[in-house]
Amino acid sequence: MSLAVVQSDPDVPFYLPIGQECALFEHAFRHRLPLLLKGPTGCGKTRFVAHMAARLGVPLITVACHDDLTAADLTGRYLLRGGETQWVDGPLTRAVRHGGICYLDEVVEARKDVAVVLHPLSDDRRVLPLDRTGETLEAPANFMLVASYNPGYQALTKSLKPSTRQRFLALDFGYPGEEAEVAIVAAESGLPAQRCRGLILLARRLRALGDVDLEEGCSTRLVVYAATLIAGGMRVDDAVRAAMIEPLSDDSETRKGLLDLAAVTLG
Amino acid sequence: MSLAVVQSDPDVPFYLPIGQECALFEHAFRHRLPLLLKGPTGCGKTRFVAHMAARLGVPLITVACHDDLTAADLTGRYLLRGGETQWVDGPLTRAVRHGGICYLDEVVEARKDVAVVLHPLSDDRRVLPLDRTGETLEAPANFMLVASYNPGYQALTKSLKPSTRQRFLALDFGYPGEEAEVAIVAAESGLPAQRCRGLILLARRLRALGDVDLEEGCSTRLVVYAATLIAGGMRVDDAVRAAMIEPLSDDSETRKGLLDLAAVTLG
Amino acid sequence: MSLAVVQSDPDVPFYLPIGQECALFEHAFRHRLPLLLKGPTGCGKTRFVAHMAARLGVPLITVACHDDLTAADLTGRYLLRGGETQWVDGPLTRAVRHGGICYLDEVVEARKDVAVVLHPLSDDRRVLPLDRTGETLEAPANFMLVASYNPGYQALTKSLKPSTRQRFLALDFGYPGEEAEVAIVAAESGLPAQRCRGLILLARRLRALGDVDLEEGCSTRLVVYAATLIAGGMRVDDAVRAAMIEPLSDDSETRKGLLDLAAVTLG
Amino acid sequence: MSLAVVQSDPDVPFYLPIGQECALFEHAFRHRLPLLLKGPTGCGKTRFVAHMAARLGVPLITVACHDDLTAADLTGRYLLRGGETQWVDGPLTRAVRHGGICYLDEVVEARKDVAVVLHPLSDDRRVLPLDRTGETLEAPANFMLVASYNPGYQALTKSLKPSTRQRFLALDFGYPGEEAEVAIVAAESGLPAQRCRGLILLARRLRALGDVDLEEGCSTRLVVYAATLIAGGMRVDDAVRAAMIEPLSDDSETRKGLLDLAAVTLG
Amino acid sequence: MSLAVVQSDPDVPFYLPIGQECALFEHAFRHRLPLLLKGPTGCGKTRFVAHMAARLGVPLITVACHDDLTAADLTGRYLLRGGETQWVDGPLTRAVRHGGICYLDEVVEARKDVAVVLHPLSDDRRVLPLDRTGETLEAPANFMLVASYNPGYQALTKSLKPSTRQRFLALDFGYPGEEAEVAIVAAESGLPAQRCRGLILLARRLRALGDVDLEEGCSTRLVVYAATLIAGGMRVDDAVRAAMIEPLSDDSETRKGLLDLAAVTLG
Amino acid sequence: MSLAVVQSDPDVPFYLPIGQECALFEHAFRHRLPLLLKGPTGCGKTRFVAHMAARLGVPLITVACHDDLTAADLTGRYLLRGGETQWVDGPLTRAVRHGGICYLDEVVEARKDVAVVLHPLSDDRRVLPLDRTGETLEAPANFMLVASYNPGYQALTKSLKPSTRQRFLALDFGYPGEEAEVAIVAAESGLPAQRCRGLILLARRLRALGDVDLEEGCSTRLVVYAATLIAGGMRVDDAVRAAMIEPLSDDSETRKGLLDLAAVTLG
Repeated sequence: MSLAVVQSDPDVPFYLPIGQECALFEHAFRHRLPLLLKGPTGCGKTRFVAHMAARLGVPLITVACHDDLTAADLTGRYLLRGGETQWVDGPLTRAVRHGGICYLDEVVEARKDVAVVLHPLSDDRRVLPLDRTGETLEAPANFMLVASYNPGYQALTKSLKPSTRQRFLALDFGYPGEEAEVAIVAAESGLPAQRCRGLILLARRLRALGDVDLEEGCSTRLVVYAATLIAGGMRVDDAVRAAMIEPLSDDSETRKGLLDLAAVTLG
Repeated sequence: MSLAVVQSDPDVPFYLPIGQECALFEHAFRHRLPLLLKGPTGCGKTRFVAHMAARLGVPLITVACHDDLTAADLTGRYLLRGGETQWVDGPLTRAVRHGGICYLDEVVEARKDVAVVLHPLSDDRRVLPLDRTGETLEAPANFMLVASYNPGYQALTKSLKPSTRQRFLALDFGYPGEEAEVAIVAAESGLPAQRCRGLILLARRLRALGDVDLEEGCSTRLVVYAATLIAGGMRVDDAVRAAMIEPLSDDSETRKGLLDLAAVTLG
Repeated sequence: MSLAVVQSDPDVPFYLPIGQECALFEHAFRHRLPLLLKGPTGCGKTRFVAHMAARLGVPLITVACHDDLTAADLTGRYLLRGGETQWVDGPLTRAVRHGGICYLDEVVEARKDVAVVLHPLSDDRRVLPLDRTGETLEAPANFMLVASYNPGYQALTKSLKPSTRQRFLALDFGYPGEEAEVAIVAAESGLPAQRCRGLILLARRLRALGDVDLEEGCSTRLVVYAATLIAGGMRVDDAVRAAMIEPLSDDSETRKGLLDLAAVTLG
Repeated sequence: MSLAVVQSDPDVPFYLPIGQECALFEHAFRHRLPLLLKGPTGCGKTRFVAHMAARLGVPLITVACHDDLTAADLTGRYLLRGGETQWVDGPLTRAVRHGGICYLDEVVEARKDVAVVLHPLSDDRRVLPLDRTGETLEAPANFMLVASYNPGYQALTKSLKPSTRQRFLALDFGYPGEEAEVAIVAAESGLPAQRCRGLILLARRLRALGDVDLEEGCSTRLVVYAATLIAGGMRVDDAVRAAMIEPLSDDSETRKGLLDLAAVTLG
Repeated sequence: MSLAVVQSDPDVPFYLPIGQECALFEHAFRHRLPLLLKGPTGCGKTRFVAHMAARLGVPLITVACHDDLTAADLTGRYLLRGGETQWVDGPLTRAVRHGGICYLDEVVEARKDVAVVLHPLSDDRRVLPLDRTGETLEAPANFMLVASYNPGYQALTKSLKPSTRQRFLALDFGYPGEEAEVAIVAAESGLPAQRCRGLILLARRLRALGDVDLEEGCSTRLVVYAATLIAGGMRVDDAVRAAMIEPLSDDSETRKGLLDLAAVTLG
Repeated sequence: MSLAVVQSDPDVPFYLPIGQECALFEHAFRHRLPLLLKGPTGCGKTRFVAHMAARLGVPLITVACHDDLTAADLTGRYLLRGGETQWVDGPLTRAVRHGGICYLDEVVEARKDVAVVLHPLSDDRRVLPLDRTGETLEAPANFMLVASYNPGYQALTKSLKPSTRQRFLALDFGYPGEEAEVAIVAAESGLPAQRCRGLILLARRLRALGDVDLEEGCSTRLVVYAATLIAGGMRVDDAVRAAMIEPLSDDSETRKGLLDLAAVTLG
């Protein structure tokens, strides 16, 4: 069985739903509740948020979080301009001031003070206090806070405190089903669906290995890379090696096993 | 038995007392003693303080503390304006200078130098020395210092020193009783009290698991989220999963158990 | 037997001596030797210093030390004013330049470079070199350095180096005796001495538990809090719980034991 | 068998392919996919990238990553010029703005926030958001991101997160084959190929020891150094010791063994 | 037998030699070699250096080193003055530029970059390169570098690297002998030598305990403190407790033992 | 047998070769290859480099590396001058811009980002990219990079990465032979060679102990110090103790053993 992929509005990024995630997102948006997306790398979380933002007709501001990201990076800071310090809004403040979805990708990576600016925005107060300017911004109806993280490889020292987690609705986000993934890869790469099928099968076998032998299974993104290279004329085994095997492991024994698995799967 | 919820003044945030906490707060305010609220996430500490501030008719300044919060973030700093450094009061200084309640949420998260500015404010001196400006502010009669923390998940390296703790009256703040929580959730979500009852029962069962299987039990806030989604037309099991199960755990075995518990409880 | 509390000069803060501490302080001041006060939280060290400063007729500058306190916080720094950097004395420099007692509360908490500015001030040189300004200030006859710390909960990584300790006279500062504490609490709270007696008894029992079950015993300050609440009309058990039990422990079993002890003691 | 080395275009740096790496690089460039080079020190990764940049006719910007390299070092920062802060592009921003290959050498050494600026550039969005200036640059068709790292000596605390790795095509880059290495060393050093042969043999034997006795085997670069010294008139054993033995180990026993191996090999 | 203390020049600080240290210091000064003083707290190192500086007729610049002392603190830095950055010499640079003894007290406490500025000054080059100003200062004949440290309580992570140590002549500096110490204490405190004798005896017994029971034995400075208090009219046991017992230990059992020892010794 | 020390050019610092090190240095300089000197403290590495720089007629810029030395300290930085930021070359940049030898003493002590600026300078590119100014400097023919380190006491966390090491020719630099050291010490100290002989013998015996009992053996520099003091009239045993024993150890048992060894050796 093959899925029919319909994407009526060309300005809305392509996204193939795999469950009730679109309904949940809309409920959250409507009730002004923040949403937490949990799931592995490259399974489509970023695309999903971009898709929903376009469907809801609101701007999307994405912030990739990292070890050194501070609250000030989100809220803004004073810069020296012409001898004057001048306040410049950060991405979160822009989303609160003008409306839109603020998407904090891999939020647990951020510095701890980030949780603090999120707290008053993510409970019923929905305000963003800017101590440096003395303002307290009230979030408009079309502001929504979305955060993601990957529970698969959180270090022990990095996790969301309950006081932060328990301010979000949460959604477990996995890889798409087989038919859905065939449709996605074909649409993204331009490779006919029939030729994508073996790559998907390999990806699913690699994910089954994931917990034991690999740090993380093969993402949909990497399958799209392989299909793109093949559609561009590269040999299947070279493309699979460069896009689906080498990125997964540095251990030569492991890679040899993965290459054997690829050879068997792709026949 | 159902509680009668009365909220006469529309400007006072809704708060349903669960013990003598309002009387203690008023005594502390009257005798100019600082107060420490101890309790789990989302049980209503922030709302309680907002409620009391409105009842007492004093401004409330809330500071969510975090790992990088320093004394200067509370007291103020010099900023460069037009080539001149100009002093800008921080939130604590504003509360001391103009009166009001300064609420330091999760105070143990703050940097250690914060304790220092609190000490002379929280004993009988009630002064705030500002070394940078050379001022020593005397707190007015309507200044009150309130701090909160969550004893449930304090890291070993993070705790209040006795020299700080022993400057505060303290209040142990737990979840509301069953009838009170039904009343609160119904009032907050708009879902009829009768339909809230099962959600409360589930939350109480999840809290009973809390110490063993979860980092922290289900907060009243999350029950309000679930009730809000249900009131908005979402299916009960989808709402409960997104609002009361997924936020509590990332472990798939644990979540499966919680979903079973939810199914049994909500029948 | 009850002590007669006499406080002739209304500008001198109330302090009830518990031994030869006033004589030692005066000797130290007269011979220009620095003094180290060792003792638990809330036993009256800060009040003692304030009392002696007033008796000796010299200004008192108190600095609460903390993890991030640096030598520059004590000595001063350059600030930008109108495009010029301008030196601003820190609290220690002000005390050296104009005379007075500089009291460093919990000195071991400070950063290590603080010891350095104290060394030439605390031996026979009695000078404060200010490298940044090129000055070397000589301390006047009425300058005195006083420091305190709490030996009860010093982390292993935090202690005074012998090269610093051995520059100070030292005084072990404990809780006042029973009659003295009754007199102090009555004077501070306005509660009749007879009604203070049970609270003092409870505090002494709590201190006896201190080393085993609590991080630190109940301070005189907390007894004053409880007496103040009772004098203000609060029920004794509510006041004791909020002021003398909850601040001591977060463990529910421990607190239950403390409440039983309070019930038995206060009958 | 000896390889014929042909280098038609004098502006293209000399590079002798050892597999399909040139084709893969061109595919990646054409499909706008980022590429990760994995391999040991001095095997020719930097030269390969320089060669491909010249062949593709695009500028090359190389950034050697290190422990203190931050996102701002890559994207740019404000500098004070004539009293005005003025934005100055970093190397990554220059490559995105004007086109070209940005090569991040030893990318795992960089600070964690670097991954963040790479993420939106290395998936299908191909954008570089500059929060400080408010710009979002779209990468032109001739922008390509290349990164390298050395899996052989990654500290446990330093690795690429799956969310970063799975955005790159990857290529395992090893030492050249024997004949190829002879050709390379002769071309680089000016020493006749026949005289290079023994040095290559020694290098290959040293690499075979590598995993057990040395932190890393002898690079092609060091062989070129030895050949250069010999071509310049230095005695073979002095040149080999200075260029191929002393750089590999500080342990005198180990070096003695390596010198014996060199004596036996070079006869 | 009592020593005759002669101090002809009133401008030369009193110092009673305990060995050949004055001759060694003069040799080092004459041959322009740096000198390292090793010894416990309060045994007279600082006074010795002050004495020698006065005898040699050169200025003395003392820097108490600490954890945060950097090379720039010694060499100097640019400060903003009237919109211009202006170089301000640090204490080491002042000593090199104008001649004199630069004494770095507890040099191992300083940051590691300090060693670097000392290296070219402490070998035969005797230069101080100032990278920030582009100058290389040559030390004049009357410049001498003296450093001290206390081998008794060096943390394992803090020591002088051999490359630094082996640039200094070194001198082991202990407590003075009994008669010398009596003479010193009497001269410093004004207490008759006969009354000092028991205090010295007690100090020597405390030092004998030092390695086992105390962090460090009783310094000569503390004996001077005790003698000063006694000369000022304080009771002997109170003075001894405040000056020689309380500064040595916080442990009540230990202090009880020390007080017993004092009682027995002072009879 | 005694060596004839000839030093024709008075501007060339005295250096007595102990092997082929001068030839290797000249080859490296001629072929524009970087050189790494490995050896213990005080064996003459710095003098050797100064000697070769003078012989080759190129300026020498020495940088003593330390824990806090950053790439910017080597390359340069912007300083504020008259309201303008103005670029000031660091020592490495000056050597690249104007020619000369840049000698990085104890290079492993430097911060990790230093390796990065060295990489493009130490392979065939020989360029120094200055990201802050946008320049890429090409090293002139008379630029040479020399680095040193001491393999004897490298902490485990401090070592040269293979990717850095394998860019350098390397030279193991030990103590001079007995006759050479006699010649060196006599020439440096002015003490007749015959009287130096016993000191050298003692130094060699101390080095033989080095690996077992001492952090590092006695350097040639310390022998020169001892000979200088003796030539200046100091007693041999006092000079040996101050210059060759006390600098080696703080342990009293060890020093006693060393003094016995000195007494036996110097008879």
